[in-house]
Amino acid sequence: MPYVNMKVTGGNEAPTVEQKAELIAGVTELLARVLNKNPATTVVVIEEIDMDNYGLGGKTITEVRKAAAAKK
Amino acid sequence: MPYVNMKVTGGNEAPTVEQKAELIAGVTELLARVLNKNPATTVVVIEEIDMDNYGLGGKTITEVRKAAAAKK
Amino acid sequence: MPYVNMKVTGGNEAPTVEQKAELIAGVTELLARVLNKNPATTVVVIEEIDMDNYGLGGKTITEVRKAAAAKK
Amino acid sequence: MPYVNMKVTGGNEAPTVEQKAELIAGVTELLARVLNKNPATTVVVIEEIDMDNYGLGGKTITEVRKAAAAKK
Amino acid sequence: MPYVNMKVTGGNEAPTVEQKAELIAGVTELLARVLNKNPATTVVVIEEIDMDNYGLGGKTITEVRKAAAAKK
Amino acid sequence: MPYVNMKVTGGNEAPTVEQKAELIAGVTELLARVLNKNPATTVVVIEEIDMDNYGLGGKTITEVRKAAAAKK
Repeated sequence: MPYVNMKVTGGNEAPTVEQKAELIAGVTELLARVLNKNPATTVVVIEEIDMDNYGLGGKTITEVRKAAAAKK
Repeated sequence: MPYVNMKVTGGNEAPTVEQKAELIAGVTELLARVLNKNPATTVVVIEEIDMDNYGLGGKTITEVRKAAAAKK
Repeated sequence: MPYVNMKVTGGNEAPTVEQKAELIAGVTELLARVLNKNPATTVVVIEEIDMDNYGLGGKTITEVRKAAAAKK
Repeated sequence: MPYVNMKVTGGNEAPTVEQKAELIAGVTELLARVLNKNPATTVVVIEEIDMDNYGLGGKTITEVRKAAAAKK
Repeated sequence: MPYVNMKVTGGNEAPTVEQKAELIAGVTELLARVLNKNPATTVVVIEEIDMDNYGLGGKTITEVRKAAAAKK
Repeated sequence: MPYVNMKVTGGNEAPTVEQKAELIAGVTELLARVLNKNPATTVVVIEEIDMDNYGLGGKTITEVRKAAAAKK
C-alpha cells in the first residue's frame, strides 16, 4: 500500500498519456524491487501544475522559462 | 484544525457536487465524533485526479478500467 | 483506490490506537457508501503533527492551547 | 530544498498570476530569512481548489459563501 | 523541479538508509529519463508511517499484518 | 481556510520552536496580505524530514551534506 505523489509542470510541459503510464509503471516497479512492496495496492498520483503556480528560486516557472529563453 | 485531503478519480468517475458535500460533512463529523475535533476549523480538500494520472497496480486507472471492461 | 490523508495534532492530543482504527474504518466506509469506492484498495494515512509544528490563526497550537488555558 | 504546498480556493476567488508570483517570492524569502534555506532549490506549489471541493466547518466553501451572502 | 512524495510503512517495515538512497536515486533517474527533468532540482521526500496510522481495506496495517500472520 | 504544508530537513538542521512560530506567523500574514485570507482559519503544517529521507539531485541530504563538508 505505498502511496506516491509526483508533481510536475503542466501546460506545454505536461507529460503525455504514455509518459504518465511509464512513470506509474516505473515507480511501482521501483518500490517492488527495492522494498518488495505489493504492486497491486501501490497507489500513484501524478499532478500537473500550471507553470504560474510552480515556483523555484522564488520565481514562477513561467518567469524561469522566460528568463532562460531570453538568454539564448 | 484537522486537515483532510481526499484524492479520487475524476473525469466520468468524478463525484457530484452533492457527493462532495456529503464527503466533507461526513469526514468532519467523523473527526468530531472520534477525536472531538472542532468542525469550525476542520479543513477538507477533495482532489479529482484524471484517470490517466492515477495509478494502481502499476497501470493507469484508464488502463485498469479498459481491462475490466474487456473482461465483461 | 482513493487516497486519504488526515493531519491531526500529536503529543498529548495524539489519537489512541483504537481511535486511529476507527478513523480509518470510518473514512473508508464513507468513501464506499458515498462514492461506491472499493475498500480493498482505499489507502488512508493519519499523520500526527507536533503542536509546535501546527499553526492556526498565525500561532502554533502550543501557543493557542496556552492562551486558552490562561483564559480559564 | 524546502518544499511548500499552498492550497487556496480557485474559481472566482483564484489568485491572479501576479498574486501567485508574490506568494512564491514571499514564502521563499521567508524560508531564506528564518531558516537560511537556499532559494535556488526551494520548490513551491500553489493549488487552486474548486469551492465545491473545499470544506470548512463541515460545509463546502460554495455553501459557506452562499450563507455569508444571504446574511448581508 | 519535480517533487515526489513517497509514503511507506515504518516501524519494523521501515526502509534502511541504503534502500531510501536507492529509492531517491531511482525515482530521480526515472523522471530524468521519461520527462527529461533536471535531477539537480528534483526534490524527493520519503515518509515512514507507523503501521497503526496506515490503513488499507478499512483496517490499520497493524491489523492487516496480524490477520495475515494468523492465517499462516 | 488556506492550507499550507512546509517540508524542511530535520535532525541537526531542525528549526527551533521560535523559528517554527515565525514561519507560521509569516506565511499566515503573507496569505492575509496578498490574498486577503482570514488568518483565523489558515492552517499551517511544518514537517521535519530526516536527512536520510530527503533527496535532492538524486542523493539523500545526508550524502549531499557529507559531500559538501568533504569539499571544504
